[in-house]
Amino acid sequence: MATINQRIVLASRPDKVATVGTFRLEEVPLPALAEGQVLERNDWLSLDPYMRGRMDDLRSYTAPQALDETMIGGTAGEVIDSRHPKFKPGDRVVGMLGWQRFGVSDGKGLTRVDTSRVPLAAYLGPVGMPGVTAWVGVNRIIEPREGETVVVSAASGAVGSVVGQLARLRGARAVGIAGGPEKCAYVRDELGFDACVDYRTELVQGLRAATPDRIDGAFENVGGAVLDAALARMNAFGRIAVCGLIAGYDGVPMPIHNFRSILVNRLKVQGFIVTEFPDAWPLALAELGELVASGRLKYRESIADGLENAPEAFLGMLRGRNFGKQLVRLG
Amino acid sequence: MATINQRIVLASRPDKVATVGTFRLEEVPLPALAEGQVLERNDWLSLDPYMRGRMDDLRSYTAPQALDETMIGGTAGEVIDSRHPKFKPGDRVVGMLGWQRFGVSDGKGLTRVDTSRVPLAAYLGPVGMPGVTAWVGVNRIIEPREGETVVVSAASGAVGSVVGQLARLRGARAVGIAGGPEKCAYVRDELGFDACVDYRTELVQGLRAATPDRIDGAFENVGGAVLDAALARMNAFGRIAVCGLIAGYDGVPMPIHNFRSILVNRLKVQGFIVTEFPDAWPLALAELGELVASGRLKYRESIADGLENAPEAFLGMLRGRNFGKQLVRLG
Repeated sequence: MATINQRIVLASRPDKVATVGTFRLEEVPLPALAEGQVLERNDWLSLDPYMRGRMDDLRSYTAPQALDETMIGGTAGEVIDSRHPKFKPGDRVVGMLGWQRFGVSDGKGLTRVDTSRVPLAAYLGPVGMPGVTAWVGVNRIIEPREGETVVVSAASGAVGSVVGQLARLRGARAVGIAGGPEKCAYVRDELGFDACVDYRTELVQGLRAATPDRIDGAFENVGGAVLDAALARMNAFGRIAVCGLIAGYDGVPMPIHNFRSILVNRLKVQGFIVTEFPDAWPLALAELGELVASGRLKYRESIADGLENAPEAFLGMLRGRNFGKQLVRLG
Repeated sequence: MATINQRIVLASRPDKVATVGTFRLEEVPLPALAEGQVLERNDWLSLDPYMRGRMDDLRSYTAPQALDETMIGGTAGEVIDSRHPKFKPGDRVVGMLGWQRFGVSDGKGLTRVDTSRVPLAAYLGPVGMPGVTAWVGVNRIIEPREGETVVVSAASGAVGSVVGQLARLRGARAVGIAGGPEKCAYVRDELGFDACVDYRTELVQGLRAATPDRIDGAFENVGGAVLDAALARMNAFGRIAVCGLIAGYDGVPMPIHNFRSILVNRLKVQGFIVTEFPDAWPLALAELGELVASGRLKYRESIADGLENAPEAFLGMLRGRNFGKQLVRLG
């Protein structure tokens, strides 16, 4: 049985831009299990934009990531030892055990998952927090009607890719915004969006061309110029689900110039956090699991190998270098 | 019977800043009444910020004000001739007859009002469109709970003054934002707000001091730095009713820097136009009428005399030179 754990801690608060030096890899002893505890081997780490927000010591919806403590984050793996009545070795589980090789849990927040039809890592993506985030934004905030146009930024990402596919399942026209021709081709051709706009080369004109009937719902992951472009194309009574503002996460100032559209078009704009919709989770996970198992919901993963490469993969994701859900494969 | 009418028309679209030269006073013949028409003498014109938006030829929620046509606007006056079965000479009426001495109406949008307990001009203010606007923002969007804090900008104005008083009637703490010590003293001492912040001298620090428990609801009339200051103080799950963005009406760029608060605090931000809440009007007018008649709802008027002074009074209002509801008294 393993006695040494490896983990990545937050070494210092970023001075605006986070770097690999912001993190530190360290070895720590793995304690013996107490009664009621589970020892889990993390096979997959989930890397998500929200983590960047936690690294700053700002007033936010949760406490900041503590310095010198294991970086937070979603994990998927296998129970290798258990003194907990509900878990046994071999169980596949997802949880929030953070950036480490092994995790010890009292079972709270640890969920056994069925990997017979859905791959384990998908429980960190389309059948996990990112998928449910998309589901809540579409079904609880934007609520697109048939024939309406829904725009989503970071459209090839873990959340955005699901947003557009769910909007299409509700009969809406889905338009993605993504960075570069490769991602845009994927969004259109593989994910089946009606159109995709490359924000690097054609944001404003491209969005205009891709939304001939303007925009009824926007799912915002990016902010800044991307959000401004969407605001300028909104229809009356449009809805904007504000899920992330990744453009401003790394200390970049991000003024919004088209706020006036909220008034002129009588928009509803709502910021949300998926954990605050607990009633939506069972419904969303059941629907998303079935869609993935049956192959009707497509997704893509960017996989970094090895715990030591998590910081670089994370920083790359903040800059859009990932393509689909960013994961770290361990072991 | 009068045969000559005087009116003010929009002479040209403003090149960013509107001036008195943007308008033109002219005399036109008053046509004979056709069957079904009413001739009304306007005693009061209402001047409102929304008119500035209409003067630009921009995509907005309504068609722009036509060039060389009578400026739109709410009016209150007396029927002096009628070939309409529902109106008779001597009736006091409010309507949307625009910036002119006399108006001819087919009766649509013309409402007879009772001036026995509420002065005629109040039907253009607290018991008219501005009052109902405040009522809808408070009761349909912000919905303050007892003990919550509601902030309103342009707090001494026709809408803002009612917002704070209605919020207090619901048990909330009302904090105004206004320009200058005189307006702030009025908002506190006469209108009974819990606090008022002078945006000219103490916007950010003043608002912090005036909102020790932060802000749960904001009623936004101004935009720009005033809105940014409110965004920075919002509590989780706060609501922002966006009623006006007067700071940007006259071509002034108005970037918003604290949009991130919408995400971090999971705010609901909603732009609205009072005419799109038709079901609220009877309820709101009944409540506001009773509050004014019984002296429990205070208000103040800025009165310009003479049609020829309407443009200057209007431009002054856009710059905050009015104090309370801006009216023009005719005749």
